[in-house]
Amino acid sequence: AMEGIAPPPAAPRELSASVALSQVLGLAAVAATGAWLGGYRGGVAWAGALRLNVHPLCMVVAMVFLQGDALLVYRVFRTEARRSAKALHALLHGAALLVAVVGVAAVMEAHGARGIAHAYSLHAWCGLAVMVLFVLQWLLGFGLFVFPGAGSARRGRYRPLHVFGGVALLALSVATALLGITEMLLFNIRDTYSKFVPEGVLANVLGLLLVAFGLVVGYIVTRDEWRRPPLPEELALSMDFKTLTEGDSPGGSQ
Amino acid sequence: AMEGIAPPPAAPRELSASVALSQVLGLAAVAATGAWLGGYRGGVAWAGALRLNVHPLCMVVAMVFLQGDALLVYRVFRTEARRSAKALHALLHGAALLVAVVGVAAVMEAHGARGIAHAYSLHAWCGLAVMVLFVLQWLLGFGLFVFPGAGSARRGRYRPLHVFGGVALLALSVATALLGITEMLLFNIRDTYSKFVPEGVLANVLGLLLVAFGLVVGYIVTRDEWRRPPLPEELALSMDFKTLTEGDSPGGSQ
Repeated sequence: AMEGIAPPPAAPRELSASVALSQVLGLAAVAATGAWLGGYRGGVAWAGALRLNVHPLCMVVAMVFLQGDALLVYRVFRTEARRSAKALHALLHGAALLVAVVGVAAVMEAHGARGIAHAYSLHAWCGLAVMVLFVLQWLLGFGLFVFPGAGSARRGRYRPLHVFGGVALLALSVATALLGITEMLLFNIRDTYSKFVPEGVLANVLGLLLVAFGLVVGYIVTRDEWRRPPLPEELALSMDFKTLTEGDSPGGSQ
Repeated sequence: AMEGIAPPPAAPRELSASVALSQVLGLAAVAATGAWLGGYRGGVAWAGALRLNVHPLCMVVAMVFLQGDALLVYRVFRTEARRSAKALHALLHGAALLVAVVGVAAVMEAHGARGIAHAYSLHAWCGLAVMVLFVLQWLLGFGLFVFPGAGSARRGRYRPLHVFGGVALLALSVATALLGITEMLLFNIRDTYSKFVPEGVLANVLGLLLVAFGLVVGYIVTRDEWRRPPLPEELALSMDFKTLTEGDSPGGSQ
């Protein structure tokens, strides 16, 4: 633990490169979503028939890009105070939830306006499961890690489940997005999809970008050596020592 | 490390329960696949039009159930010799590859017989990515962990990537299966799917079973405290000490 008193080491070069790659992939996925909806599906608008297109745009931005970046906060802001990183982590997840609610409202209203049944498909079932688990995870995380009441022992016990849940929710969000892409293609270009028309290829590429983003974020978050090192001022607070370093000390994993 | 000399502890009760749950979910998924294909799709046969149905059955058995169980080997056989566990791990993955090759051949021949283009859909692209990465992972694993030539340092460096790759491949296999379910439903019952017909509900339940199996296996494999403890005879081989305990010692994670 003595080494922890020294200034925290700079982020490993491979970590920085992986974070940069994740952002390129995530932004490319958002751009590909926009290009697909704008170039082949008439664009995005709340009014009229284009309201359905609000759904994929909101869900990719919220449940993939924002949710993924929320997971990266502790790896990117390695030398900021822990409470700042925690606040940004919770805020990004909160922003993801807000945008996702707009996206869910869009598809529900679009289905309602056209008289289409709600929540019958596997995409919808997976999406509902993700939203329920996401809200549960956010509430548990807020209650245990933001409110001061939870003791360090309880936080330590819950932390591994919180980390596993976060990565699992991102994976399930990506899978749900792939299902949405497949539904949209089979409803719109079922007869030409097998002829490798540009819209189908673009949407497939979007799917692979979402998968690649999820893989890179998952790798960054789960790699032991890239855990956030405890800061000197955190080590100095000996009362909270166990809370602060538990599961975050680089010592155990080397 | 002194505690390691004592007889290895029995598997934690929660681990045993989680493994049992994973098997119930995995077998239920295989049964649901059979019920769907048998009850609504005319059954499974290599001859004639039913050859296409060989594909989903083989892929669920191979890429979800067998692949998932291969990941569990080190957690289930905690007190067997490491080389036995390793052999079973490699064998289950090899069996998965064989069954998956039959499944891929089935869909290629079925597409060829009907003049349908190959590999145009997102399901196919994800499936091809999974198969290529799976073979790569198997070859790397065999070369580094089975052949005696690779040194312990190289094995230690590669091990985290091997574990991440295995969990990621299982997740991507489940996602690919969900895409296949959605494709099959939209090609066969597109007009009645939204009326919650039994076939659609059964296939959705199958999808959720596959997701649940993947989540439970992923949780078992990534939980630190459930790592395989080193056996007494492994600890006794002091020459190989570092290899055997690296990344597997329960000491660091408690």
